[in-house]
Amino acid sequence: MQLLKDKILSQAEIVNAHVLKVDSFLNHQVDPKLMQAIGKEFARKFKDKGITKVVTIETSGIAPAVFTALELGVDLVFARKGKSIVLNSNLYQVPVFSYTKEKEYSLVINKAFLNSDDKILFVDDFLANGQALMAVQELIDYAGAKMVGAGIVIEKSFEAGRARAEETGIEVYSLARISKLYADTIEFEGE
Amino acid sequence: MQLLKDKILSQAEIVNAHVLKVDSFLNHQVDPKLMQAIGKEFARKFKDKGITKVVTIETSGIAPAVFTALELGVDLVFARKGKSIVLNSNLYQVPVFSYTKEKEYSLVINKAFLNSDDKILFVDDFLANGQALMAVQELIDYAGAKMVGAGIVIEKSFEAGRARAEETGIEVYSLARISKLYADTIEFEGE
Repeated sequence: MQLLKDKILSQAEIVNAHVLKVDSFLNHQVDPKLMQAIGKEFARKFKDKGITKVVTIETSGIAPAVFTALELGVDLVFARKGKSIVLNSNLYQVPVFSYTKEKEYSLVINKAFLNSDDKILFVDDFLANGQALMAVQELIDYAGAKMVGAGIVIEKSFEAGRARAEETGIEVYSLARISKLYADTIEFEGE
Repeated sequence: MQLLKDKILSQAEIVNAHVLKVDSFLNHQVDPKLMQAIGKEFARKFKDKGITKVVTIETSGIAPAVFTALELGVDLVFARKGKSIVLNSNLYQVPVFSYTKEKEYSLVINKAFLNSDDKILFVDDFLANGQALMAVQELIDYAGAKMVGAGIVIEKSFEAGRARAEETGIEVYSLARISKLYADTIEFEGE
């Protein structure tokens, strides 16, 4: 998506070879027109897959995901991050290790909001090593539902996330695929 | 807003006399059509106020706020919740005490995203005692900007939030004003 790539090139901040900061339009300040365009593009891509629900993770996935859900005419569910696994039989929960924060948290979805016949489109701001995506896949598995595809705003294609997702049969569609980050240069896949 | 009141009456769960759970359409599962309608209504109400930015607080404010920002043609900024005040001169920060979680956290906005000439519309899912609103007001004051109004999805009008906001000159516009919660009954203001 050229609009997104242009935003990344003009506004993203390269923190190091693995970390890109997009606080000015996605992760802290949010450009709603861009989010709407992203939602429309994900919906266009997955409109024939019988999606019944969009799932994302709080916080930064919500803006692109809510526009995707609107376009597809389905509800959005955002997985919540908890401190640790708690005793609660109403919840699906999986532990996740965060490399950036160097600690474990749990990802939680209330059982009431995932059904065994749901076909899920997962939407998230970033795909890197695929930790978050695989954790959501596990929650969806618990429910007996199916993750049909993943709509990713920014993929770091030099990390293992896509391969891990595709191994389990999930179709990954990323709007910007970054193949390399260094010094003050961002390289996109295939360019 | 009748659509919202109907949702509340049919789907909200009364936890106790102070707590209403709206996890099925706002705080965990999200109804994107309702969020769009809410965004349009806030934009209609405040369209002549010269709003330059919509501000909300992560997480549940983001969905209604991003549609409001889209309709007004401005960016959205969401204040982040941090564990505690950190040493960082790039951030506006205020401490907030959470009564539900019984501990203090800090509310943070990067200085880059608030300008002294900004006219802010604050959007949030709930208004109760006004803690969060007053904290955001403080962040906006630090920036020398002005909070022009507050668009609230659900107001608990039996708590002090509205009075506190109006004392500081903020126009509060709530789409559902709940005057009483008891047993299995929800009473709306003026009905």
